[in-house]
Amino acid sequence: MTIKRIGVGKRMSACVVYGGVARTAGFVAEAAAGKSFKEQTADILAQIDATLKEAGTDKTKILKANIWLTSMSGFAQMNEAWDAWVPQGHTPARATVESPKLAAVGLDVEIMVEAAV
Amino acid sequence: MTIKRIGVGKRMSACVVYGGVARTAGFVAEAAAGKSFKEQTADILAQIDATLKEAGTDKTKILKANIWLTSMSGFAQMNEAWDAWVPQGHTPARATVESPKLAAVGLDVEIMVEAAV
Amino acid sequence: MTIKRIGVGKRMSACVVYGGVARTAGFVAEAAAGKSFKEQTADILAQIDATLKEAGTDKTKILKANIWLTSMSGFAQMNEAWDAWVPQGHTPARATVESPKLAAVGLDVEIMVEAAV
Repeated sequence: MTIKRIGVGKRMSACVVYGGVARTAGFVAEAAAGKSFKEQTADILAQIDATLKEAGTDKTKILKANIWLTSMSGFAQMNEAWDAWVPQGHTPARATVESPKLAAVGLDVEIMVEAAV
Repeated sequence: MTIKRIGVGKRMSACVVYGGVARTAGFVAEAAAGKSFKEQTADILAQIDATLKEAGTDKTKILKANIWLTSMSGFAQMNEAWDAWVPQGHTPARATVESPKLAAVGLDVEIMVEAAV
Repeated sequence: MTIKRIGVGKRMSACVVYGGVARTAGFVAEAAAGKSFKEQTADILAQIDATLKEAGTDKTKILKANIWLTSMSGFAQMNEAWDAWVPQGHTPARATVESPKLAAVGLDVEIMVEAAV
């Protein structure tokens, strides 16, 4: 089996496909400063959609999701964006936990997923 | 390969099986309020057993586990329940880290696993 | 498919190989006390190299990495060691988040990876 890497950076790749599974990086919102938890989540999910498309799949084949929030006070807002996005009947195994700080100031949400290809 | 989803909710599924691997959601204790780290862990592991059974597998085929604790002060207690549960000779790759808050007040332990099917 | 476990302990295994994927435990530095984030990361990555070798693979086949830091103030230092280690053109999907405490005092970095075998 071959390994297919998408969005290959010096430090990480946006997505790695192997063995029929696409594994994404932990995505954060672009231009996050001043954006709410809901807005950041929607931005991230749009990036994930685009990345899964590049990998030859889509959100109906999502298997697993890990979500980190800088504060659980944003849990309901994150879920508003999530619920509007996640396809009914195709929901993944998911875990959401608090991580006080993400990689840069202003980032409040990070999401990493796996999807079948 | 087909994707099999178990315990499909609107937001997430309890378990998703694909490519010979069952991926569970992050499980938390039911009626957690007032339960110790050890009691919550035992409750979670019983839920994982039931879910793996539904997926057609069991804890002897566990591959990976991610554990989150709201305080590392509960590490020893979590391990007491874990050590009583994990089958010798079949222990998974595991990572345990602190997450100050989980999805609801009273929850102190969350566990997400992968198992071969 | 068979499950191959490496470094099998009573509580966890160092690595579990199944379905063409090696899943490592969350590695922490040995004798971490007094070591910087950079030194701890370098120590961990050397352990991961040795473990992947035992699993019959190497870092060029890395698929996914989860990194936990006790403080994001160590992010740049972790990345110094990471950047010196990660093979260009073969970078994994990666997520780095803060976890205030790891399993023992003195530990500031924990890394869990998956690699194709």
